Amino acid sequence: MGESQKHVGVLGLGRMGAALAGALLGAGHDVVVWNRSPLKAGPLLDRGARLAATPAEAASADVVLSCLSTYDTQQPVLEAASPKVLVNLTSGTPEQARDVAKWAASAGVEYVDGVIMAVPQGIGTPAAQILYSGSETTFSAQRDVLEVLGKPIFVGEDAGMAALYDLSLLAMMWSTMAGYLHALALVGTEGVTPEQFAPVASAWQAAVGGFLPRIGEQVASGDYATDVSALDINAAGLAMLVETSRAQGISTAVPAVLRELFDRAIAAGHGAHAIASVIEEIR
Amino acid sequence: MGESQKHVGVLGLGRMGAALAGALLGAGHDVVVWNRSPLKAGPLLDRGARLAATPAEAASADVVLSCLSTYDTQQPVLEAASPKVLVNLTSGTPEQARDVAKWAASAGVEYVDGVIMAVPQGIGTPAAQILYSGSETTFSAQRDVLEVLGKPIFVGEDAGMAALYDLSLLAMMWSTMAGYLHALALVGTEGVTPEQFAPVASAWQAAVGGFLPRIGEQVASGDYATDVSALDINAAGLAMLVETSRAQGISTAVPAVLRELFDRAIAAGHGAHAIASVIEEIR
Repeated sequence: MGESQKHVGVLGLGRMGAALAGALLGAGHDVVVWNRSPLKAGPLLDRGARLAATPAEAASADVVLSCLSTYDTQQPVLEAASPKVLVNLTSGTPEQARDVAKWAASAGVEYVDGVIMAVPQGIGTPAAQILYSGSETTFSAQRDVLEVLGKPIFVGEDAGMAALYDLSLLAMMWSTMAGYLHALALVGTEGVTPEQFAPVASAWQAAVGGFLPRIGEQVASGDYATDVSALDINAAGLAMLVETSRAQGISTAVPAVLRELFDRAIAAGHGAHAIASVIEEIR
Repeated sequence: MGESQKHVGVLGLGRMGAALAGALLGAGHDVVVWNRSPLKAGPLLDRGARLAATPAEAASADVVLSCLSTYDTQQPVLEAASPKVLVNLTSGTPEQARDVAKWAASAGVEYVDGVIMAVPQGIGTPAAQILYSGSETTFSAQRDVLEVLGKPIFVGEDAGMAALYDLSLLAMMWSTMAGYLHALALVGTEGVTPEQFAPVASAWQAAVGGFLPRIGEQVASGDYATDVSALDINAAGLAMLVETSRAQGISTAVPAVLRELFDRAIAAGHGAHAIASVIEEIR
């Protein structure tokens, strides 16, 4: 163990917790792990991790990462552990993160909340964005450890901010995936296979990703003027999509809710505006 | 006009029709344009286009591109024009495209339906994917003209296929944009600006685009096994998103419909499967 290596505790060895511990071991840190079922620790012990018999034993480390299945599972573990420095990577809502921050403040625990925008297989690569919020001092002091896990991004002193970003980014992912599944189902009604559709869809999805910065600018400025693609034309297209989905015998659920949203924005006077104006009916 | 140049008619000079005519002029083709209001032709005439007094006059060309606002507007124009070769770029449903194909067959008109996956500003660049369906012979014979407009992709002999692809790709776009607007609205409730959110969101959206090929493979094989991210975990996240959206005072419309869809897939036994399994509840 080199001078710059730290003593790191990991609470929870699900797929993600195990990936975190593995990345830390790979970087030469001194890792102590705890899991309700100690059997899961086996592969990590083979790689040099030490097994803690209790959460408190793991929490004697310089910094503790917590990655449990839910906040309800986590809270008694945290209270038993009572770490000096806690990085909470359990998934939850902003409110849940803020509640743990309040407990941490009252218990004298330095606290950062984190959310991992990656699958376990991505841990340890720069493609894994990991967002943190809470104490910026603690974040900076633990940056050497956090950089081992992925690309650390600090998003604010409000402990709930990372969870708010997380849910917002996941909203993008779920919407994109649902749109893609709808598209696959629709072309599939005429025998088009995912293999046939994928090249066209991937090129198009990349183009759509390129539209997002402009949407952000329009939302930021509140100037929805467009000479490219007005909401009423898009709403007419959505009506065709709903009609065609119905005619082809597939679900209309996703396009129908988008159509209602677009139609509400048109009713509010945004027909000649850019699609970005639909945010007025969301917020 | 060189040996390889053609006499091309363009019916309809909205933003898109004018962009098509402009690209054809730029490539040195002999372009004759018709629009209900001839005033719109001005800038094109300055660049060398000729103005047709009637649709029939424009339709004396080797090939006619039609780009009108709706199929209802288009049909009488096509019947008056009676072109030899028609490329129909008016937006509509697969059924509308098939109806024009039937009319074309009965009227002895060679017919290709096309859909433009680009804004007018993108016409003439390879980034503009343009999908065609109908007569492959006609598509091949006119490829030299079509390549001027964007990247031509033939998707099938069924004239309705290009429109089916179009609506499917637009479903992806609208879902992605709605997800992004929801995300901007949600982070906005805590004062995060689009400018602050955009870098994280763009990196994430690119990562999400990278998940789509795997989803296509899972749909193609019907094998939804995953060791990455099971539907029940994602549905729990969606429930948090709905709850947090409500708590922050924004619309729950989009996440709520996704949640219902995911929950139906779980009720059908897909809880431990990949998100791709949700397609079983769409098709």
